[in-house]
Amino acid sequence: MAIMSETLTQILIPVAALVGIGFALLQWFLVSQVKVSGDVGVNNGICTEKLIEDEEENVDSHAVTIKCAEIQNAIAVGATSFLFTEYKYLSIFTVIFGAIIFLFLGSVKGFSTESETCTYSKDKLCKPALANAVFTTVAFLLGALTSVLSGFLGMKIATYANARTTLEARKGVGKAFITAFRSGAVMGFLLAANGLLVLYVSITLFRLYYGDDWEGLYESITGYGLGGSSMALFGRVGGGIYTKAADVGADLVGKVERNIPEDDPRNPAVIADNVGDNVGDIAGMGSDLFGSYAESTCAALFIASISSFGINHDFSAMSYPLIISSMGIVVCLITTLFATDIFEVKGVSEIEPSLKRQLLISTILMTAGIAVVSFVSLPSEFTLYNAGTVKIVKNWHLFFCVSVGLWAGLVIGYITEYYTSNAYSPVQDVADSCRTGAATNVIFGLALGYKSVIIPIFAIAVAIYVSFSLAAMYGIAVAALGMLSTIATGLAIDAYGPISDNAGGIAEMAGMSHKIRERTDALDAAGNTTAAIGKGFAIGSAALVSLALFGAFVSRAGIKAVDVLTPKVFIGLIVGAMLPYWFSAMTMKSVGSAALKMVEEVRRQFNTIPGLMEGRTKPDYATCVKISTDASLKEMVPPGALVILTPLIAGTFFGVATLAGVLAGSLVSGVQVAISASNTGGAWDNAKKYIEAGASEHARLLGPKGSDPHKAAVIGDTIGDPLKDTSGPSLNILIKLMAVESLVFAPFFATHGGLLFKWL
Amino acid sequence: MAIMSETLTQILIPVAALVGIGFALLQWFLVSQVKVSGDVGVNNGICTEKLIEDEEENVDSHAVTIKCAEIQNAIAVGATSFLFTEYKYLSIFTVIFGAIIFLFLGSVKGFSTESETCTYSKDKLCKPALANAVFTTVAFLLGALTSVLSGFLGMKIATYANARTTLEARKGVGKAFITAFRSGAVMGFLLAANGLLVLYVSITLFRLYYGDDWEGLYESITGYGLGGSSMALFGRVGGGIYTKAADVGADLVGKVERNIPEDDPRNPAVIADNVGDNVGDIAGMGSDLFGSYAESTCAALFIASISSFGINHDFSAMSYPLIISSMGIVVCLITTLFATDIFEVKGVSEIEPSLKRQLLISTILMTAGIAVVSFVSLPSEFTLYNAGTVKIVKNWHLFFCVSVGLWAGLVIGYITEYYTSNAYSPVQDVADSCRTGAATNVIFGLALGYKSVIIPIFAIAVAIYVSFSLAAMYGIAVAALGMLSTIATGLAIDAYGPISDNAGGIAEMAGMSHKIRERTDALDAAGNTTAAIGKGFAIGSAALVSLALFGAFVSRAGIKAVDVLTPKVFIGLIVGAMLPYWFSAMTMKSVGSAALKMVEEVRRQFNTIPGLMEGRTKPDYATCVKISTDASLKEMVPPGALVILTPLIAGTFFGVATLAGVLAGSLVSGVQVAISASNTGGAWDNAKKYIEAGASEHARLLGPKGSDPHKAAVIGDTIGDPLKDTSGPSLNILIKLMAVESLVFAPFFATHGGLLFKWL
Repeated sequence: MAIMSETLTQILIPVAALVGIGFALLQWFLVSQVKVSGDVGVNNGICTEKLIEDEEENVDSHAVTIKCAEIQNAIAVGATSFLFTEYKYLSIFTVIFGAIIFLFLGSVKGFSTESETCTYSKDKLCKPALANAVFTTVAFLLGALTSVLSGFLGMKIATYANARTTLEARKGVGKAFITAFRSGAVMGFLLAANGLLVLYVSITLFRLYYGDDWEGLYESITGYGLGGSSMALFGRVGGGIYTKAADVGADLVGKVERNIPEDDPRNPAVIADNVGDNVGDIAGMGSDLFGSYAESTCAALFIASISSFGINHDFSAMSYPLIISSMGIVVCLITTLFATDIFEVKGVSEIEPSLKRQLLISTILMTAGIAVVSFVSLPSEFTLYNAGTVKIVKNWHLFFCVSVGLWAGLVIGYITEYYTSNAYSPVQDVADSCRTGAATNVIFGLALGYKSVIIPIFAIAVAIYVSFSLAAMYGIAVAALGMLSTIATGLAIDAYGPISDNAGGIAEMAGMSHKIRERTDALDAAGNTTAAIGKGFAIGSAALVSLALFGAFVSRAGIKAVDVLTPKVFIGLIVGAMLPYWFSAMTMKSVGSAALKMVEEVRRQFNTIPGLMEGRTKPDYATCVKISTDASLKEMVPPGALVILTPLIAGTFFGVATLAGVLAGSLVSGVQVAISASNTGGAWDNAKKYIEAGASEHARLLGPKGSDPHKAAVIGDTIGDPLKDTSGPSLNILIKLMAVESLVFAPFFATHGGLLFKWL
Repeated sequence: MAIMSETLTQILIPVAALVGIGFALLQWFLVSQVKVSGDVGVNNGICTEKLIEDEEENVDSHAVTIKCAEIQNAIAVGATSFLFTEYKYLSIFTVIFGAIIFLFLGSVKGFSTESETCTYSKDKLCKPALANAVFTTVAFLLGALTSVLSGFLGMKIATYANARTTLEARKGVGKAFITAFRSGAVMGFLLAANGLLVLYVSITLFRLYYGDDWEGLYESITGYGLGGSSMALFGRVGGGIYTKAADVGADLVGKVERNIPEDDPRNPAVIADNVGDNVGDIAGMGSDLFGSYAESTCAALFIASISSFGINHDFSAMSYPLIISSMGIVVCLITTLFATDIFEVKGVSEIEPSLKRQLLISTILMTAGIAVVSFVSLPSEFTLYNAGTVKIVKNWHLFFCVSVGLWAGLVIGYITEYYTSNAYSPVQDVADSCRTGAATNVIFGLALGYKSVIIPIFAIAVAIYVSFSLAAMYGIAVAALGMLSTIATGLAIDAYGPISDNAGGIAEMAGMSHKIRERTDALDAAGNTTAAIGKGFAIGSAALVSLALFGAFVSRAGIKAVDVLTPKVFIGLIVGAMLPYWFSAMTMKSVGSAALKMVEEVRRQFNTIPGLMEGRTKPDYATCVKISTDASLKEMVPPGALVILTPLIAGTFFGVATLAGVLAGSLVSGVQVAISASNTGGAWDNAKKYIEAGASEHARLLGPKGSDPHKAAVIGDTIGDPLKDTSGPSLNILIKLMAVESLVFAPFFATHGGLLFKWL
């Protein structure tokens, strides 16, 4: 048995989660010290005085603060209203899908309430299948709730922090950076700690019923992953369509036709655009990563439950995935202090290195943390279930499995940075190709995205080979968890991006000086890169998670091999590889159509509202917000249905072999599409920013704003928007959700599936 | 045994091939009746008189004819010179790669000259492995030679026919259509018949040595497929880079900067552009389809040789793939008469239906032909080898296998037409999105390409399932052959495209009237669609061929199952799925860089040659031809190396399991990338043509030439060029060539492969 006792495990996990929540609240408090309300001057006389001293310009500080507060409020109201509308639809979906889960799983043994022989320990009695149906449904609901909460809290803090970042930018880039970064950390820690806590509490409560039937217990818990991911699907897709419809629509009329700057308050779609950043990149991303986290933990727990940990009822070893996550929270806490307290960002050039340093520090510390956890919570030798056979594994094997995932994540992060940051030659080459117009820009950008796939895929392949060889599918699951163990830091630097983007938008809308906007632009450019890194992490972990879920599904469906040389599997494989394209076609077309509607409305307002162009009257922001809201809610249905229904149809009509093929195909194909789409989009965005910033001789040759190369770069940026923020990142969910759904429904498919082949 | 005797088989196959060659020569003769030399008036007085009567305009017919002859000559000289330069490099490659084949295969049994026990018939003695090494190398050389010949002859007839089509366009669109179509048919029939004849003669000659050792005989013959495909790789990639560097370069300066029409003789890159059509779309496509044809035949023959056909030495049944192809030549001959003699194209609107009718007629007739062949050349029941087991198959099973491939091809062709022809809503939607600029055009175009993948993939999946279930891997191979059985017709309508494109170019350069150019434009628009259909066929058949080769490889490497759940296979799968992206990144970047060089040269000429813009002096066409030639020869090396080296590295260092994963991954992922790239490009091209033609109320709203939507459409068209003519179609070869190479090297990998895992 492990060195760590069961009691200690039961104490340490919730304590780590609570520490994480406490730390998040502390960061929130520190952010809240920046006042944005109109009464700043009255309450904090000293602070205001100091502010004015630091100011490099003579704008009326009070008026600006009030203006910022107004804009922040508009964004927050828009985002909240969209999320509540979305949640209304999601709750209907959740109820229906919950009922389907219950009915499908309940029907496996004809809704019998009698206990039955366990599947993997034939000598024992397990709880009835009906109980598993009930508890899976409950776990599903809990997962859905936690996912929604994660996204919502992220959006709340982001819309709370954006104006504060803008105001701090007046004092210098370092202060603004800290504010944005702290706010990102709030989201990161809340999400990581919440996910862990809810899962831990659920397991503890479920145990009250299941007792020693761990097989049933951890089988039911997989519903948690399904719940998390299905909410993430709609969050990512709906949010992605929302944000890009607004962004593309605003750019097409504002920047291209009317020649007014980005985020200009005269543009009617500008509030919708900023709302979009919060509902798409923040709430959507939060739900997505929460989903990955929940799924990889569930996959690991499920495989462990049918291995020696579960059979011997070794709770500490069983909880290994949760302890890794607990350690992750502690490591990320220390890492965060490096950015906020130990090193200080003094200039624009230090922003990106500081964020990159976060990744490196957390990875190095976490490697030590994994070693500790592996040696204290695991027995020195144990057996793992491996598709019908048993594999002997040592605790240091698992150390390597988790670490290889963690380091693969770092490699993916760094490579993504290389391909999307305008500090390196790939993006500069893309910018350079704008000399000959938009066409060459697009050709070079697409080629860059394709090329950026190579090293991440090799990193994922190495992680898979090492962890698979050492500890079979359990190894893959914990490798995924390793990549996600520093999720709090990952999310902090990721959420930093849209917050800075919003801060820049607010600076522009509040009419702040050129200097302030230059600072927020610098924050934003770094944010584009970190957003791309975050997407890299999300897709990398999604690949590992899906494979782990795939392995768990195969175990649970009782498949011994997934042989490509059988026709059932091969047709699944090729159709599965097609799904990311089908899905992307839907989401991209959705963004396109919604953007066209937005363009028409923005044009209408410019043409019919007198004095709008001159800035004398305010545009009708609300109508644009409504167009984005309606379009995204309507358009998220078909891609959502594709993802949700595919495993059900494939499993029910074609059986588990074809479904296994579909999962493998969509995994290996989707990863490529997702990485290339994200990086192409990120590169175009930063190629544009490179020309705009004009920081080098070469960049000035291409610029300034409004030059022909810049116009070509703007076209690339607009094309990249749906690629990097809608279709690309949504694919993570496609591959994960289909896998976890297959896992949850596996008992049904194994019993009743393959109707079509049975008829033939 | 089969109804058809061995002697009859031995007579019928070469006779069918000779009939095909005879028919091709007849068509060539008919095309040659159109005179382009300057002495038309002298020799064919009556004809000239008639010509002038039919003319609707008063240009000097003689001068125009001479001008056309000049331009044709320049294009033919450019194309021939490029191909000869290419062949010089290819011959070096062929010698080296031939040596590698010999050394690798010879080393399997240490270059022993002793006979050995057969692999599949353990009671017999087979020829030594060294003999197989020698004959595989010879077959490889023969395949390479035939492939080069196919491409070269295609180019010859195309550069012979282009100006003749232009001149015939003066008499009406129907005459021009017939000329272009007949020329396409010359290429189609020459290629199909040549491929069949050389293969048949090789088998007959090899038998003189091998005698009853059919296992060794047909194993060696697989070299023929490898030879064909490796030439096709360089033909497609080199030709693709050539044509698009010239096209993109010409468009970027001519259309966008200088605002002169496409194919304007003042543009220095215009000859290079027209040469490109012939070396890329004609010679490259010819080599590609010849490769598919040779490979699917080789895969089928190899599997048959180790099944009951081979073991029982039933030559007629063994030659089933060849007899199918013979029947295909006869069916295509009849089909061609429908286009050239039975129905007459009278107006522009009848061009596309006439070409589509060709597809339908050939498919219907061929279905009957397959039935006849299946019943006379096959025993009513026989056994097939299926990855270690034996499967009992009836002759009507094979009828279904071949037919399902044939009809899947028709479905792919029709769907491709739907998504790329501007007669339907998808392309019209893309054209409509140009209203809001290039960005939405690109977004909608990409979405269209992604969407166009869905039905072809389902068609391929059905074909695979049916043929796999009925006759295992042999079924797949003959299904591929079924899709390619009407290759003569397919190539005819495909080659028709670039010929019409050239005809339009010559009309423009010769300064012919607006009316003539409208006719050639209409021919060209239909040609874009048929080119896309041709690409659809090429990729659909490539998918089936690769799978068949994959099956043959697996049999020959002695693998029993390719289980996705093993780490070695899975890492192969995910890395394989990445290869199409890596490959596309290289080819697209190559086109981009080469186009930039072209742009600089074209700009230089416009700026430094006095009187060029006014048409008083001639540009320096030769320098542009040289730029395209040099760039394509240099740039084809890295992608070529990627394709050639991947199987060697994967097989040698990682072993056959990983290699099998790589093949499956690149197959399922590459098909999607290839189809979407081809169709996106085709759609953009025709969206632009839709706006230019202004045939409907909607189109006129978007036009005319030079309007903002038209400019946006031109950007899309330029982006689509490398997608549809370089990276997309080259992917066919990636997946086929890696598979056939693995098959040829399988004995080596099975014996000596997997070094890395052996060391670990």
